[in-house]
Amino acid sequence: MSNNYFIEPIGIIRSPVKSRSDAPKQGSESNVEGSLVVQEKYADAFLGLSPGQKILILYWLHLAQRDCLQVHPRGDRSRPIRGVFSTRSPDRPNPIGVELVEILRIEGNTITVRGLDALDGTPLIDIKCDV
Amino acid sequence: MSNNYFIEPIGIIRSPVKSRSDAPKQGSESNVEGSLVVQEKYADAFLGLSPGQKILILYWLHLAQRDCLQVHPRGDRSRPIRGVFSTRSPDRPNPIGVELVEILRIEGNTITVRGLDALDGTPLIDIKCDV
Repeated sequence: MSNNYFIEPIGIIRSPVKSRSDAPKQGSESNVEGSLVVQEKYADAFLGLSPGQKILILYWLHLAQRDCLQVHPRGDRSRPIRGVFSTRSPDRPNPIGVELVEILRIEGNTITVRGLDALDGTPLIDIKCDV
Repeated sequence: MSNNYFIEPIGIIRSPVKSRSDAPKQGSESNVEGSLVVQEKYADAFLGLSPGQKILILYWLHLAQRDCLQVHPRGDRSRPIRGVFSTRSPDRPNPIGVELVEILRIEGNTITVRGLDALDGTPLIDIKCDV
């Protein structure tokens, strides 16, 4: 378990949500529309994606604190403190966000989606079908 | 987007499933029981986890091919080829698996779960509550 693994972002998330204080909380409902701008070199990996599908996206929570093991859920100090593994807090040892979004359009290497929680500029690391 | 990010596994998955050919396919039903053996240094992050909860686990698909952009879904050559982003194939640029499992027991830093797809020895990278 001493090995580390490296992630190379596949693209970037573009969203109208620009700061963490404005962001919907992970796991809550979101109707935010934005886009997944994927690098050209991954174009072949799109085959089979189409509007109307739900996809799972993974992204790197680049503003997170990785040395934080306990938090007040949703940043609310009136709520009892919890371990990060029992929350969706972005602060966690490996700060990867996961959420389900709906494809609205695909134009070239850009996928417009609805249901985003991630901030503008968040590195995108994976797209998977929802099953 | 030229930055890479490093993942440090938080533990290891122990499962009776020892090889990729025996593994349930990602996203299919699994009743496999196994355990998440988390490193002691993350014990504080468990607070709030309890038996009966569903949790989302993320793990590093350490046997995957990262340079593969298209596959026959579920390895079945009779099915049309698809881009990896429209599948749950372990082969993908950033080989991270995501699945929902149920907590059966927690003993020290070991969480026994039901519903595992991952192979024995897979590096565990995150645990999140399911919301």
